[in-house]
Amino acid sequence: MDSPWDELTLAFSRTSMFPFFDIAHYLVSVMALKRQPGAAAVAWKNPLSSWFTAMLHCFGGGILSCVLLAEPPLRFLAKNTNILLASSIWYIIFFCPCDLVSQGYSFLPVQLLAAGMKEVTRTWKIVGGVTHANSYYKNGWIVMIAIGWARGAGGTVITNFEQLVKGGWKPEADEWLKMSYPAKVTLLGSVIFTFQHMKLLAVSRHNLMFLYTMFLVATKITMMITETATVPFAPFEDTLSRMLFGWQQQFSSCEKKSETKSSFNGTGSSTSKPIAVASDTVKKKHTKKSE
Amino acid sequence: MDSPWDELTLAFSRTSMFPFFDIAHYLVSVMALKRQPGAAAVAWKNPLSSWFTAMLHCFGGGILSCVLLAEPPLRFLAKNTNILLASSIWYIIFFCPCDLVSQGYSFLPVQLLAAGMKEVTRTWKIVGGVTHANSYYKNGWIVMIAIGWARGAGGTVITNFEQLVKGGWKPEADEWLKMSYPAKVTLLGSVIFTFQHMKLLAVSRHNLMFLYTMFLVATKITMMITETATVPFAPFEDTLSRMLFGWQQQFSSCEKKSETKSSFNGTGSSTSKPIAVASDTVKKKHTKKSE
Amino acid sequence: MDSPWDELTLAFSRTSMFPFFDIAHYLVSVMALKRQPGAAAVAWKNPLSSWFTAMLHCFGGGILSCVLLAEPPLRFLAKNTNILLASSIWYIIFFCPCDLVSQGYSFLPVQLLAAGMKEVTRTWKIVGGVTHANSYYKNGWIVMIAIGWARGAGGTVITNFEQLVKGGWKPEADEWLKMSYPAKVTLLGSVIFTFQHMKLLAVSRHNLMFLYTMFLVATKITMMITETATVPFAPFEDTLSRMLFGWQQQFSSCEKKSETKSSFNGTGSSTSKPIAVASDTVKKKHTKKSE
Repeated sequence: MDSPWDELTLAFSRTSMFPFFDIAHYLVSVMALKRQPGAAAVAWKNPLSSWFTAMLHCFGGGILSCVLLAEPPLRFLAKNTNILLASSIWYIIFFCPCDLVSQGYSFLPVQLLAAGMKEVTRTWKIVGGVTHANSYYKNGWIVMIAIGWARGAGGTVITNFEQLVKGGWKPEADEWLKMSYPAKVTLLGSVIFTFQHMKLLAVSRHNLMFLYTMFLVATKITMMITETATVPFAPFEDTLSRMLFGWQQQFSSCEKKSETKSSFNGTGSSTSKPIAVASDTVKKKHTKKSE
Repeated sequence: MDSPWDELTLAFSRTSMFPFFDIAHYLVSVMALKRQPGAAAVAWKNPLSSWFTAMLHCFGGGILSCVLLAEPPLRFLAKNTNILLASSIWYIIFFCPCDLVSQGYSFLPVQLLAAGMKEVTRTWKIVGGVTHANSYYKNGWIVMIAIGWARGAGGTVITNFEQLVKGGWKPEADEWLKMSYPAKVTLLGSVIFTFQHMKLLAVSRHNLMFLYTMFLVATKITMMITETATVPFAPFEDTLSRMLFGWQQQFSSCEKKSETKSSFNGTGSSTSKPIAVASDTVKKKHTKKSE
Repeated sequence: MDSPWDELTLAFSRTSMFPFFDIAHYLVSVMALKRQPGAAAVAWKNPLSSWFTAMLHCFGGGILSCVLLAEPPLRFLAKNTNILLASSIWYIIFFCPCDLVSQGYSFLPVQLLAAGMKEVTRTWKIVGGVTHANSYYKNGWIVMIAIGWARGAGGTVITNFEQLVKGGWKPEADEWLKMSYPAKVTLLGSVIFTFQHMKLLAVSRHNLMFLYTMFLVATKITMMITETATVPFAPFEDTLSRMLFGWQQQFSSCEKKSETKSSFNGTGSSTSKPIAVASDTVKKKHTKKSE
């Protein structure tokens, strides 16, 4: 049982995220915030608001999972050490003279290292979320998936929501309607670790953590190097969605004849589709006009 | 005490909502979602988002009451059976070939049956909410009314809020500014059951549940058949609002003379009304300009 | 130890807010609501919505702190007496014939008295929030500051958020991007009382409460009389922000040379600044148009 492979993965699964991996996570998050247009100007005009946004970027996933489980969203503020760490990183990144950090961060190797370490923290968050949710609901495997997902990828939801409240909301930056790659891969990992936690997978957790982390880091780095946003498991998605939801063909085929006998107070989805298109065009026109 | 009437109402009040009435509730909710323009298109483009919206439509009231009582909003996800039931109904409705369910649902008798059964679940939700809130706050009768109302009619609030977050918000679909008929009748029922729970009404609960449910079903079905949205107790509303808030006449009468001595930094409500109109016109102009 | 000064401050710190100071707080809050354009019209069209908004204005800070600590946001509804008090004040202000209350409130001395008493309640709220948060997190001094701040000045956040949900949101009324004077002074007080609570200040609590309240009332009344919104401690702010964030000079100095070698996928803050300025000007022009 204690083969070198097991020893390696076991040691890996016992790695503490604090401080180095956390630092990488904060660095990547705050840099992503700074690269938003106007973030630096806001940091000068109103440092407190910028600091608050940075904290949401760093701890968003934990906040979301706390909200979903009705735990105090301010709990993350009680971890004084992490808060001070993230705050100092925020301060250095935004107010360092001559913008040295951005200069250094703009070199690809640094970005690759930081992004890779951030992906490692994602695994730890998912596992933590799944285990934490299981302590609430014994058999609530849907809850476990949701919490693992929220911890791992909930930051984007929180930050979108915060932008919404701040009035600077861009609906095309919406996470609901089109899942980003991190959201997809985090959902996959959350499902995998939930199944493992419910003893539905014949893999030990530390092995799974090691493999999933390797997968995360590899895909992330390849995506950053090739600068492509192509999801590696797009074909699986297509086949899955075709298996599950692939009725468009038959549907459109019998759309014709259902078009004739249009249903009572004509709002079957047969007619709702053109309506949708219409409304979209209206919206587009509106936005185009408003520029 | 065990007259046939009592036996009937007692047996009725002991009816279990699961599974048939719940199924009817899910059916009506998801059909209402599907009839929104663009819902079917979203279901093909992004099934997960559509499933999430459907769950909010089905469990919105419970989620809102959980939020208001600081219970985990994800608790509804722990009821695996209900989730799977609602999910399968969502799947059948949205992805059934040739759209058979919508075809069948478009027949009036089916709609009447489903809508009637959904109204029955409303009573159960109100009673459950009132009892649940009472377990938190012994004398908090305002909380009991609010929770009963949230459980019974909170779905619309949640779904509006979700549309707001999604960016597809239509402010004229707002539930705050103009209460819909379900919101009104649920508020009425919540007040009634709260009074009954605080022993202020000389009616036994099962009788009250039976009568209120009959009232709900009757009004709902008559409204669906006559296709009118006329609220049956509109006259009572008018008299009540005239009794409580009917100062417009005298108000407008002394608006004249208060117009002359317009008050210090002129923002008494005497002047605030024209201001409101002005701001509305400004807003209208603004939107017109932006096109 | 029982010098007349101590006796005075001790007696002051034991003053009960209920009912007179609470009444003043409700009066000021509801009058602020009524002075919003269109509030009176809404109160006639839909009294329930207006009542809900008034309750948010009166209890917003407590609701926000409850949300942040994952306590039931409806807890404030359980205090039946305060609810009835605030509701009656809302009723009198909005529906009193001939608008007598607004007439009376439009006299400066009444406003000064009410505003002064409201400022007194602010101190009590901050102290209560700090103590309450400390009962959750022993050493979470950041949480204590946040909760004290939320209780004291969270009403504006809640009401902004409510306006956002209602669709009547004005992003220039945003509290995040530009802190109002009450938000600033409440943050200061929350920091002070947190330090005092953690025994970092050599002042007894009742003395501190007395001094801080005197400071609040004095500044508020002077600001109301001179009708200026000048923050008394603006110079301290400037020096502090120059000490902490005063890198603009060096930054703009080396902006020149960093302009040339614009960094990888050019979104360093060096380029984000002009973008921000542009967007600001756009926004300004936009708002100018809308007038």
